[in-house]
Amino acid sequence: MNAPATHAHLQPGAPLRPVPEAFLDALRARFGAQCSTAQAVREQHGRDEGSIQAPPPSAVVFAESTQDVADAVRLAAQHGVPVIPYGAGSSLEGHLLAIQGGISIDVSRMNRLLRVDADDLTVTVQPGITRKQLNEAIKDTGLFFPIDPGADASIGGMAATRASGTNAVRYGTMRENVLALEVVTAAGEAIRTGTRAKKSAAGYDLTRLLVGSEGTLGVITEVTLRLYPLPEAVSAAICSFPSIEAAVRTVIQTIQLGVPIARVELIDANTVRMVNAHSKLGLREEPMLLMEFHGSPAGVQEQAETVQSLAQEWNGNAFEWATTPEERTRLWTARHNAYFAAVQSRSGCRAISTDTCVPISRLADCLLDSVAEADASGIPYFLVGHVGDGNFHFGYLIDPDSPAERQTAEALNHQLVARALSLGGTCTGEHGVGIHKMGFLLDETGPGAVAMMRAIKQALDPQNILNPGKIFAL
Amino acid sequence: MNAPATHAHLQPGAPLRPVPEAFLDALRARFGAQCSTAQAVREQHGRDEGSIQAPPPSAVVFAESTQDVADAVRLAAQHGVPVIPYGAGSSLEGHLLAIQGGISIDVSRMNRLLRVDADDLTVTVQPGITRKQLNEAIKDTGLFFPIDPGADASIGGMAATRASGTNAVRYGTMRENVLALEVVTAAGEAIRTGTRAKKSAAGYDLTRLLVGSEGTLGVITEVTLRLYPLPEAVSAAICSFPSIEAAVRTVIQTIQLGVPIARVELIDANTVRMVNAHSKLGLREEPMLLMEFHGSPAGVQEQAETVQSLAQEWNGNAFEWATTPEERTRLWTARHNAYFAAVQSRSGCRAISTDTCVPISRLADCLLDSVAEADASGIPYFLVGHVGDGNFHFGYLIDPDSPAERQTAEALNHQLVARALSLGGTCTGEHGVGIHKMGFLLDETGPGAVAMMRAIKQALDPQNILNPGKIFAL
Repeated sequence: MNAPATHAHLQPGAPLRPVPEAFLDALRARFGAQCSTAQAVREQHGRDEGSIQAPPPSAVVFAESTQDVADAVRLAAQHGVPVIPYGAGSSLEGHLLAIQGGISIDVSRMNRLLRVDADDLTVTVQPGITRKQLNEAIKDTGLFFPIDPGADASIGGMAATRASGTNAVRYGTMRENVLALEVVTAAGEAIRTGTRAKKSAAGYDLTRLLVGSEGTLGVITEVTLRLYPLPEAVSAAICSFPSIEAAVRTVIQTIQLGVPIARVELIDANTVRMVNAHSKLGLREEPMLLMEFHGSPAGVQEQAETVQSLAQEWNGNAFEWATTPEERTRLWTARHNAYFAAVQSRSGCRAISTDTCVPISRLADCLLDSVAEADASGIPYFLVGHVGDGNFHFGYLIDPDSPAERQTAEALNHQLVARALSLGGTCTGEHGVGIHKMGFLLDETGPGAVAMMRAIKQALDPQNILNPGKIFAL
Repeated sequence: MNAPATHAHLQPGAPLRPVPEAFLDALRARFGAQCSTAQAVREQHGRDEGSIQAPPPSAVVFAESTQDVADAVRLAAQHGVPVIPYGAGSSLEGHLLAIQGGISIDVSRMNRLLRVDADDLTVTVQPGITRKQLNEAIKDTGLFFPIDPGADASIGGMAATRASGTNAVRYGTMRENVLALEVVTAAGEAIRTGTRAKKSAAGYDLTRLLVGSEGTLGVITEVTLRLYPLPEAVSAAICSFPSIEAAVRTVIQTIQLGVPIARVELIDANTVRMVNAHSKLGLREEPMLLMEFHGSPAGVQEQAETVQSLAQEWNGNAFEWATTPEERTRLWTARHNAYFAAVQSRSGCRAISTDTCVPISRLADCLLDSVAEADASGIPYFLVGHVGDGNFHFGYLIDPDSPAERQTAEALNHQLVARALSLGGTCTGEHGVGIHKMGFLLDETGPGAVAMMRAIKQALDPQNILNPGKIFAL
């Protein structure tokens, strides 16, 4: 382990900015019971699922409309106070932390389905609706929204972090599936980007610029999404392999052949053990692929046969099928609970998650070297991956009271990111930059691209009130 | 016909800016024979395939490297002179016109394939390579680049205008298929955006911001693209219908069922007549769909059977199959030559093209009302469409010496755009804004989004030297 001397990506940026009492008075006057300064409420809004901590925001506004968001931002702009949008609180890289002070704008009450255009395969929602609420609300249309980051995140938050997850290998990420937005700018004005048309060449792609901007360029107040017809046939299978390499090589060939697999997740043997213990399953404790095929009955069978024959060449076991919806849900729930299963496997631990994504041909190299490093470190970890996209996550399970363990985990992360970048990959496939990966972003893009991001930020938010201190330092 | 009183979208913007002799001397000193001020060369670079005219640029630099582009931009920045990137000259909305003066940077000599990563399904090219050159260069890899705007455009130009075309219904547009860019900024510095990873959440999506920015935010000097495995089976078919409506309803249901059709093009009866005359074909002179199916042999058959049964419900004829590659090429060449066939059908005419795109459920309404208006106007026209995406083009064939005809055509375009916007669509699916659609862009997004675009432009190009006067007025 050669731990780097410093971790610039853990610096919180500028100091806390003042939140004048006059501003809080104005907020209370405008929002009444929709504004809370209770300690418990503030603390709940001052953290996310990641491992970084900061003082909580000074107040939380529970917005119920675009007008509420616009008014809160306008008041904040008048007083130069930071605003941090809050959806479901499931981000991982410190996105929600009030590291420069300010207030949280909670949009979870803005969770209405505004319009479904089933014939156009589109839906327009408020940002606080979660992906599960959305799919429940449209279940009678024969359509579904596929993006599935695991957590039951809010759609606004998923757009803000450019989320993806298990279905992205087939259906793309929020980048491909957000058609249009309504956003409140730093001046407190609501603007619209995009239309319901499937494609457009009408000027700068503000929609794609705002998707993934982590609340630093505007507060998302409405999202229009693409939907997909529920597949006629769905089948899920698991397949165990003698090694991680065998599993990964099977995936690489599947992608290179162009098989339109809907999901293909890697779970390493150690993580299968944690999942078995947590979810009372009896999965074979070997490296495993969890797959799902969507299409016509014949198409699904054809895809599965192709992948099965590739797996056999790598000494994979025969597929075990989950044919009923209940069996499939049980398997996917176990997969989504891998994080919690892992965290519960070590009492009192916190997980430090990695999120590299590499070109598919480099996936095996990147993964295997990083597994060897993690094994050598002695830190317990879990390993799961959306491997069809070349994206995987280690979660290093550290004792939060041990600076040495945190340093070791950060050093592992650092080495993994350096490896991914040298292989043509990215430091973050889907979690975003937040506070934690600011140094990595600079390593990845070089100073020129970050300077361009900074110039855009300064042009659109000259007071730097929109979620300041995230993505890059100003 | 209620022609609008004014056409703000035809205003050329600010007056010509001076191009100092000292600047031209510096260009000649740096570029020697790579810099031309010959009248014929300047005129060739001062127009595109659209119908707007302007004085030519003062000089043309034939760049052969990123360094050449950077040096040309840096010299231009020192003298405050506009620069206009030039690829294949096939844009349609006045993108290339030197309406504020300046120089053209021709990148057509930068047409090398820099790297193919067949295992990753990616390729990196210089911007001047055309889509046909690219596909020729990679033909031994078993992969192809699907985006096909008809013209043999340069990849850099296709990225700059967010091009799409016939295959976009299945494979997406340049928005979805550009992974990474190298771009020379207004300061003459080369920066990189994106990586070869399939997805990323690493900061602002500069790649997507630059795709479609029409040379106004940077000059593209390198493009990394997604490739696709050549489908195991391809079949093409044509199907004639008793009416445009019947053809369009078949397409709408095809898309709503989620059939992964690779191409589905509408050609109206009048345009079929023009194509027959031009390409010596004997196609039935009725509204026609030209379709292509990609997949496994069984998958292709299944898709075709589904669409055939939908077409029958709308009284479409039996599919006529083009089974050999030669027959398919003949059909698609005829489709791509529809523009030229139409222009040749009226001696000396120019085509004014429309490019609206609407949500698929509104396609029939939008098309049929606009056909009625065009028929009533007496102006000859062609009508083709990438109807699977809700995108179609009228080409009004006007006498360029008749202001009355131009006004009538612009009025038809205006009414069509207003209709598309009222149906939730966009004024441009794939041609871009250029000069011609600046007013339409404002109608579409409202002033808030255009103000955001302007702020970004001013931040990244404070001297306004990068293709000024396009997309919006400053």
